[in-house]
Amino acid sequence: MSDSVQIYFVTNNTHKYLEVKIIAEKYGFKLIQLTGEKIEIQSNDLGKIAKISALNAFAKLEKPVLVEDAGLFIKAFRGFPGPYSSYVFKTIGCQGILKLLDGVLDRCAWFKSVSVLIYEPFILTGEGIVEGIISTEPRGSRGFGFDPIFIPKGATKTFAEMDIEEKNKFSHRAKSVESVFSRLIKYLRTLG
Amino acid sequence: MSDSVQIYFVTNNTHKYLEVKIIAEKYGFKLIQLTGEKIEIQSNDLGKIAKISALNAFAKLEKPVLVEDAGLFIKAFRGFPGPYSSYVFKTIGCQGILKLLDGVLDRCAWFKSVSVLIYEPFILTGEGIVEGIISTEPRGSRGFGFDPIFIPKGATKTFAEMDIEEKNKFSHRAKSVESVFSRLIKYLRTLG
Repeated sequence: MSDSVQIYFVTNNTHKYLEVKIIAEKYGFKLIQLTGEKIEIQSNDLGKIAKISALNAFAKLEKPVLVEDAGLFIKAFRGFPGPYSSYVFKTIGCQGILKLLDGVLDRCAWFKSVSVLIYEPFILTGEGIVEGIISTEPRGSRGFGFDPIFIPKGATKTFAEMDIEEKNKFSHRAKSVESVFSRLIKYLRTLG
Repeated sequence: MSDSVQIYFVTNNTHKYLEVKIIAEKYGFKLIQLTGEKIEIQSNDLGKIAKISALNAFAKLEKPVLVEDAGLFIKAFRGFPGPYSSYVFKTIGCQGILKLLDGVLDRCAWFKSVSVLIYEPFILTGEGIVEGIISTEPRGSRGFGFDPIFIPKGATKTFAEMDIEEKNKFSHRAKSVESVFSRLIKYLRTLG
């Protein structure tokens, strides 16, 4: 695997890009951030959203593309905000979630990530989940989105209190991205 | 490979469907004709047209899809009608091509086909070319499009004078479709 193989990561989120870049490099790929319009359908299915974004980007670009989509799922709210996490973050934010959870005993939640990698002749989909709880107050200034209120199982810090390397040890995103990169490498080797 | 694996062939052309169905069956796939709107971009690149059609169909359907696109390329006309063969056939037809070639010595031409098969985790592209000449008059009533005026190299009949089995021995379409099916089978076996 040559070091110069480039994969275009379709995201306007530079935090996300930096998290995934480290993982891509581990597998020998150079990750290039592709900002701009990302076609996202409205759906309750993260996998479908990511797949359609990736197919559209690949149709336009005809080069290897990666799309990753994630959501925070809160047990007490039947999964809300789920696939609409980004919108909910931009509107009611961490404070809105904390307010909704005020007086609620069950603070269990999970982040789910879906990655779709199109690298001819492959189209690979991967998933990653990290369980945890919603903290009682925002902590930390790293990461993005709901990171300041999510404490993954096995940690005492929120995602926003971790540096990228530490977050990647726990994160849903790291798991789903690792899943597609590791399969790509395995498949490329197997097919020679 | 189970006999029940279904592949959706996006085409409104039943002749095309019947030609490809025989080949699909040889590889153990059941080919289902998917009629309706097929998104075709305007491009001089057959491969790009087929790829974008396939990506769009797959995004909608999320099931295995096959798209095949072909054109007749006439040497004396710098490739015309090429990727616009279907439009040119519907407008000026075989008679228009014969009229254009009236008095032209070089009647060399070729059909080119591009197939794109999306079958997770694979996206496969194949090409097929058949060289031949444009006959001086239309002959035969089988096939479709410019088949009545194309005589493949090594044959004395036009495509329209051949039954499907015989046409498939020569045709650009059979070659490009064989290419994607044979690779799919090989890859599926290799990856277990």
